[in-house]
Amino acid sequence: MSLITVGTMAFDAIETPFGKVDKIVGGSATYVAYAASNFIKPVQQISIVGNDFPEVEMTELTSRGVEMDGVEVVADKKSFFWSGRYHLDMNTRDTLVTDLNVLADFNPIVPENYQGADFLMLGNLMPKLQLSVINQLTTRPKLIVMDTMNFWMDIALDDLKEVLKKVDVLLVNDSEARQLSGEFSLVKAARKIMSMGPKFLIIKKGEHGALLFNENHVFFAPALPLEEVFDPTGAGDTFAGGFIGHLAKTQDISFENMKTAIIVGSAMASFCVEKFGPERLKEITQKDISDRIQQFVRLVNFDIDLV
Amino acid sequence: MSLITVGTMAFDAIETPFGKVDKIVGGSATYVAYAASNFIKPVQQISIVGNDFPEVEMTELTSRGVEMDGVEVVADKKSFFWSGRYHLDMNTRDTLVTDLNVLADFNPIVPENYQGADFLMLGNLMPKLQLSVINQLTTRPKLIVMDTMNFWMDIALDDLKEVLKKVDVLLVNDSEARQLSGEFSLVKAARKIMSMGPKFLIIKKGEHGALLFNENHVFFAPALPLEEVFDPTGAGDTFAGGFIGHLAKTQDISFENMKTAIIVGSAMASFCVEKFGPERLKEITQKDISDRIQQFVRLVNFDIDLV
Repeated sequence: MSLITVGTMAFDAIETPFGKVDKIVGGSATYVAYAASNFIKPVQQISIVGNDFPEVEMTELTSRGVEMDGVEVVADKKSFFWSGRYHLDMNTRDTLVTDLNVLADFNPIVPENYQGADFLMLGNLMPKLQLSVINQLTTRPKLIVMDTMNFWMDIALDDLKEVLKKVDVLLVNDSEARQLSGEFSLVKAARKIMSMGPKFLIIKKGEHGALLFNENHVFFAPALPLEEVFDPTGAGDTFAGGFIGHLAKTQDISFENMKTAIIVGSAMASFCVEKFGPERLKEITQKDISDRIQQFVRLVNFDIDLV
Repeated sequence: MSLITVGTMAFDAIETPFGKVDKIVGGSATYVAYAASNFIKPVQQISIVGNDFPEVEMTELTSRGVEMDGVEVVADKKSFFWSGRYHLDMNTRDTLVTDLNVLADFNPIVPENYQGADFLMLGNLMPKLQLSVINQLTTRPKLIVMDTMNFWMDIALDDLKEVLKKVDVLLVNDSEARQLSGEFSLVKAARKIMSMGPKFLIIKKGEHGALLFNENHVFFAPALPLEEVFDPTGAGDTFAGGFIGHLAKTQDISFENMKTAIIVGSAMASFCVEKFGPERLKEITQKDISDRIQQFVRLVNFDIDLV
């Protein structure tokens, strides 16, 4: 009963209407690990960092049950760096700087002791590398979840389509679903994307929630209406971490349980946006999580007997 | 046990990415009446039409329990006419033509036999006229619901604020909530708007669903993910009609019952957008409505015991 996560561990510089940070820990695998480790241990991390990635961050993750055997440390290079500025609506952002650094040479190797994992979370990363990890596994995991982004659709669509054939769940946002399918209607987009490989599709709509599609079924989970979204960076990765963390914990990959997993993911993401970077995720307790999930229940629960 | 509705009865010309109609029956009170009459009779209509409004439409509405005593027919003028073109996302539109015609002289009179109604639906209309209707009522209704739009915020904000002080529920869309409150966060916007008078606020987000606020409580209802939104004209009015129709039918104006009423309103709106104008609303049966509401239950229902 374990979970492999693949993705970046990095530094971000972030500007939002509420503030600015010049250098904060980030990366898709970092957020996934912080979120998923609340539900499942070990989280077996595969990533790459430079000589500048904080030891204290590694220790913090390790103390939460995140295994680092698959994290390559490159002594003479810097970690991946991303810098971006959010617009007022927080749903759109401009990328200001992308310094690949160590990521330019990343060749993920699955450690021997990771083999046999039941769950695989492919965080947002070059599709070729996601595929390489799948191909290295001697036993196919029970469930493979893949995150990706428009950038890979622009420059590596053929590779992306290869990975799609091998995964069970794809996570994209609404504009990416439209780009990938060429369909404006999300219902039509979902049908087309599921014909490319994944049996399940999650379309994230930011502050407007998320949709889960499977065959002819659809489930909708709202985002929590928040007073302030402080920093949306990592919210999608945190959602993914909560989602697969719940599935790995319960060992149940039915559509019904995926609904619950999406609520768990949404709850985790709602914490993420409350502070810069993964800061808020480091503070929260099991009770905070369970209270937040109850807020989601109250948010959508209604009594239909009256109708 | 009755419901008064006030608003326009009109003609629309509509252009969407899916087609075009040059002249179709529309108007806020028309849509409200078609929706609400599925749940409550009589619906006591207050509106104004010209010599061109179809007799067959009046007969159709009357056969559904809509009373026309409050609908003034002006013999020598034309009905209100609106023409608009929707963008591809269907959430935004350009107004091409607005011919006030009879609406320029509208002075709504509450007929004597409408007095004593428990529910009042103030459809989107000049705020002064909404206020005039409230002031004519000898007994305050149990619940006053008000719809409005950005246009009145631009040109009649003071009047609008006067009406706000006298209503229980306000319906606006997200951009209108932001405009009226000056707050970007919808949670903050809701708090500010509720301090202006209404105890309940519904923020409609089109394809992204709707939020209901009351004191510190919030409820979220999704919109049904549809293959195609054919024509969104009247969806907001239809939502309002389903909402107040359910409340009037059940005679229960608690927050809990308003949640259900919002699901009913969303279900009605999901029919409205399937064809041009109110065409689809004329076809549906009680079974269609009940099946559609069940779709909403399945869309948001999840089992949280597993967490």
